[in-house]
Amino acid sequence: MALLVQKYGGTSVGSIDRIQNVADRVMASRREGHDVVVVVSAMSGETDRLLGLAREIRQGIDGRELDVLLSTGEQVTIALLAMALESKGCPARSYTGAQVHIRTDSAHNKARIQEIDGARVRRDLADGRVVVVAGFQGVDEHGNITTLGRGGSDTTAVALAAALKADECQIFTDVDGVYTTDPRVVPHARRLERITFEEMLEMASLGSKVLQIRAVEFAGKYNVPLRVLSSFKEGEGTLITFEERSMEQALISGIAFNQNEAQLTVAGVPDQPGVAYRILGAVADANIEVDMIVQNVGADATTDFTFTVHRNDFAKAMAIVEAAAGELRAREVCGDDKIVKVSIVGVGMRSHAGIASKMFQTLAKEGINIRMISTSEIKISVVVDEKYLELAVRALHDAFELEQAPA
Amino acid sequence: MALLVQKYGGTSVGSIDRIQNVADRVMASRREGHDVVVVVSAMSGETDRLLGLAREIRQGIDGRELDVLLSTGEQVTIALLAMALESKGCPARSYTGAQVHIRTDSAHNKARIQEIDGARVRRDLADGRVVVVAGFQGVDEHGNITTLGRGGSDTTAVALAAALKADECQIFTDVDGVYTTDPRVVPHARRLERITFEEMLEMASLGSKVLQIRAVEFAGKYNVPLRVLSSFKEGEGTLITFEERSMEQALISGIAFNQNEAQLTVAGVPDQPGVAYRILGAVADANIEVDMIVQNVGADATTDFTFTVHRNDFAKAMAIVEAAAGELRAREVCGDDKIVKVSIVGVGMRSHAGIASKMFQTLAKEGINIRMISTSEIKISVVVDEKYLELAVRALHDAFELEQAPA
Repeated sequence: MALLVQKYGGTSVGSIDRIQNVADRVMASRREGHDVVVVVSAMSGETDRLLGLAREIRQGIDGRELDVLLSTGEQVTIALLAMALESKGCPARSYTGAQVHIRTDSAHNKARIQEIDGARVRRDLADGRVVVVAGFQGVDEHGNITTLGRGGSDTTAVALAAALKADECQIFTDVDGVYTTDPRVVPHARRLERITFEEMLEMASLGSKVLQIRAVEFAGKYNVPLRVLSSFKEGEGTLITFEERSMEQALISGIAFNQNEAQLTVAGVPDQPGVAYRILGAVADANIEVDMIVQNVGADATTDFTFTVHRNDFAKAMAIVEAAAGELRAREVCGDDKIVKVSIVGVGMRSHAGIASKMFQTLAKEGINIRMISTSEIKISVVVDEKYLELAVRALHDAFELEQAPA
Repeated sequence: MALLVQKYGGTSVGSIDRIQNVADRVMASRREGHDVVVVVSAMSGETDRLLGLAREIRQGIDGRELDVLLSTGEQVTIALLAMALESKGCPARSYTGAQVHIRTDSAHNKARIQEIDGARVRRDLADGRVVVVAGFQGVDEHGNITTLGRGGSDTTAVALAAALKADECQIFTDVDGVYTTDPRVVPHARRLERITFEEMLEMASLGSKVLQIRAVEFAGKYNVPLRVLSSFKEGEGTLITFEERSMEQALISGIAFNQNEAQLTVAGVPDQPGVAYRILGAVADANIEVDMIVQNVGADATTDFTFTVHRNDFAKAMAIVEAAAGELRAREVCGDDKIVKVSIVGVGMRSHAGIASKMFQTLAKEGINIRMISTSEIKISVVVDEKYLELAVRALHDAFELEQAPA
């Protein structure tokens, strides 16, 4: 008998029928002898409906009252799921974040969980109940309602699993696991049975948005085994582990890509301290998030500084950088929002040379020009023209033989 | 400078425009120098939407989870109103019932308020904020969310006013006060400037549903001055006081009526102890509420027992009574759901004989047959054929000269 924390997202609880479905799944786990704690999101569309009401009152909504408003979305779901369970004969009890003391800091709209008091949940489990907890929300030390920011329900589930020392945290989504790459681009992409936390972090941040990054970090920190499964389809999903893979396993786990990037280059800047700060400081002040940053030393005493931002922020970032360019005595500023980032990810590459060269060779063979390169311990990312996205992903998927399960 | 508790019902906060309107009203009171605590209901339609979701899961919903579900309705409103106030430059803070410790018993769906800790509200008022509190909800000693039952927001407002020792509790509704009778029946019905708590109780329970009965009882118990006003129209409304009227004031304050009643008679029952219990016990066991009860002693050793129920419960009540009739050796059971109850209400009648006879005379003059009579200290009710409703109310309104303000 295991203790499972199961999390169902907005799509999985998007209608009464689907909530009934979730109740059936939970009860199936109970019949297998497990104790179950369920974390749910707001029904799909509900958060947007509430945001719409708030926007009718004023633009630029944020702060304390927004959390009071949005937290009702999950509260509706927990009540409905508990009712569905009880009507099927399964004892259940619902709790808001405040009721199970999901204590957070006071950063409204993007609070971080500080501690969870699992006593109440444990008591209900001991009494034979399913415990249904509202995701995405908590309470600060003054009793104010907080929210963790969108998608925070994953974090709630992992934090609860950690606090309760659950055997597994199961994240039910509309995909049935983590794939070697997006099956819409590579139809023979393969579902991974296991992936390491670090790989998952890289996959998530690179655009394979199966899980919230913070949830994965949290799971890694507290050694919570995390599994991604489909709400709609039977299957084992993908287990995210904190164990290193053995040597016979694949060097590369998957290929991630991000179509929402734009690139900005400040060329011919005097190569001296403070340049990067002066460019990126202004961008950060405008609340624009920067992804890749690459700086090349040029032949003369100048340097070229390139970075990428979300495509939505491209025009704003260009204006800021152009304003700063004069002061920096840059030769020119240029940008391109018709680019994509493609990355290969795998813990195996740490101990294997030749992965990078194989990647670059594969792209060269297809005549794809690489515009930017950035690497980390377990990933290599390149920026290429948007038009090459599918070609690049398919060529790399074939070259690294990702359709075959590791021996 | 006074401390006001203002309560706005579902219609008054039924849209974003109306919520903006409420914010303006609250701020007008602040400009007059008052401290304001606002209690709000769910936006009109929201509670029914939530009930609809619950009913899709199962019929006969009740209990703990229903309260978790329904309490979100008010929570949405408090957040939106606080946002509206803040966007207009008025500092505000919203609280759920649990957050301001509106402690109730554990009777889910119909909980009773036991105590309120006003400390947090007082601190916010001292800091110059408007405090917005969710009506209708509370929290039991174990931290479970409870609701007071429909319309319970009035009770929340009065209880808060009592706990904070407010100068006035103002109930904003879609009517601009308490009238001598329903203006749809008597166009020249007059708005009362004042009415006593006891009269108000009788008026409310008899169908002039301006206020929740429990709220009025609560206000009377704690001497909270209560005022009914319109959310949509300027005016003084009606003040509900706990003072007796002086002698020159009217004997009768108003005429109430109830069109939703049905009458059941068990005729020719042996006149012996336990009869009333055996009839009404079975009815009560079926959760049917009984309004009037009249028993006449007959000429022989039998008695006729008559009572009224809500028209929706008529068929069910008839079935129960017919089943019990054999055992009771009753001569016959008959019923009628085409009846109405008309009542005259006024504290003045206590000290004046002749009110009852004037009422019966007025009805007789119009040829209206009285089927049942029941009296209390400050009210006389009669049951008449449904078709006579308007005629009876108008004739009584004229006979007691209610269109004229007391001298």
